[in-house]
Amino acid sequence: MKKIELYEDEEIDDLQLKGLCLIQKKSAFRFGVDAVLLSQFARIKKNFRVIDLCTGTGIVPFLIMGKFSPQEIYGIEIQEEMAEMAQRSSKLNDLQDTIKFFNKDLKDIDYLKSLGRFDAVTVNPPYKLNNSGIVNSSDKQAIARREIKCSLEDVIVAARTLLKDNGRMYMVHRPERLADIITAMRKYKIEPKRIRMVHPNTKKAANIVLVEGQRDGGQFLKWEPPLFVYKDEGGYSDEINLIYGRGEL
Amino acid sequence: MKKIELYEDEEIDDLQLKGLCLIQKKSAFRFGVDAVLLSQFARIKKNFRVIDLCTGTGIVPFLIMGKFSPQEIYGIEIQEEMAEMAQRSSKLNDLQDTIKFFNKDLKDIDYLKSLGRFDAVTVNPPYKLNNSGIVNSSDKQAIARREIKCSLEDVIVAARTLLKDNGRMYMVHRPERLADIITAMRKYKIEPKRIRMVHPNTKKAANIVLVEGQRDGGQFLKWEPPLFVYKDEGGYSDEINLIYGRGEL
Repeated sequence: MKKIELYEDEEIDDLQLKGLCLIQKKSAFRFGVDAVLLSQFARIKKNFRVIDLCTGTGIVPFLIMGKFSPQEIYGIEIQEEMAEMAQRSSKLNDLQDTIKFFNKDLKDIDYLKSLGRFDAVTVNPPYKLNNSGIVNSSDKQAIARREIKCSLEDVIVAARTLLKDNGRMYMVHRPERLADIITAMRKYKIEPKRIRMVHPNTKKAANIVLVEGQRDGGQFLKWEPPLFVYKDEGGYSDEINLIYGRGEL
Repeated sequence: MKKIELYEDEEIDDLQLKGLCLIQKKSAFRFGVDAVLLSQFARIKKNFRVIDLCTGTGIVPFLIMGKFSPQEIYGIEIQEEMAEMAQRSSKLNDLQDTIKFFNKDLKDIDYLKSLGRFDAVTVNPPYKLNNSGIVNSSDKQAIARREIKCSLEDVIVAARTLLKDNGRMYMVHRPERLADIITAMRKYKIEPKRIRMVHPNTKKAANIVLVEGQRDGGQFLKWEPPLFVYKDEGGYSDEINLIYGRGEL
């Protein structure tokens, strides 16, 4: 492992996956279950070019590399500080030739076109409509969570632009936005093909949704069995333990 | 109970709900869990005018009457034989002044307009696209199951026409059509507001979906906790027993 400079408020976390590490802020933007579920949901082959939008610290590209070892992964992040931190994580893992981060705006379609086409797009976008109260538009947490710098529609347009014919996009989002997601995907001819709902337990409504879309795909939507994070009697479910590498099939 | 003529291939079934009965064919078109779940999912008040599209034998109007006692319920059915049988069920229950069936095509918008506006529309439409193999277009079972006489879009347009401002539509359908349902509802400004997925058990993908939409409703989609028909260890779930009146809270 290379020697990498860290800022005072940063630390290196071991991803417990093929020795991969990630630089994170000690207090903010720490990756969560969304990124883990998204990288588990995606179907990536070794010869794929993959691009992750709204990549933040770069957690999704590193998890995808650890699980699927694709040929190349790009990450796009609008916040300079985050993109720079992600790029240092690439160097830290000696993966700077395979995982590359770019501090760009996904609304810059000409820039996206200059990157060529990808087999798969992954994205963990801001969840909330930017209509619920005043927020500081330079607030980094707000930018990651609310549609301040990009809307759901911007994300879908970017995916449409980046995907090869029949390429797949994988998104993690909130169930209450699913009507918006499906409407926007259909509008830009990314057909919803597979959905999985994630519930806290069997008694509760889903609070995370995983969606696979296919560029110009045919009309058929497959629903997967639900994923429950906790057992009803408490403790993580067997499937979650397996996803986190703590259990066995 | 009135004396009602039955054809030889018909029988009277006790709905086990406030003494209500339904005439059904002995062999075909018997009502199923879809109708029961739809009438359970709907939220109907006593002062409501309700209309049920694709009403078939009229099971949904009778279940809704038994549960909610609204002021008036209409049922629209394109197959003459079915509509006539449903109307005899109304007489059988001495409800012919409250539950009325009409042998009409829901694509006849001028006719729908002549009925006035409704507080709620319920519908258990044909599930299957009419693109999967040759079917006999006069086959009664096929008409009930496939989009031969009406498409999903026709159903949504009819609901839009029939609903009062902010009125609600309640639909039971198949999850693989949910992208089509949401797209069509949004197109005709019936906003998806509430969805419940119904699964055989906790291990299996949903195979029924219940959707509530609101005419010109605001953009917010609530997902309900999942409904499981069977316990994982076998036997009906407590909630299903309750819905069928076989259990207690």
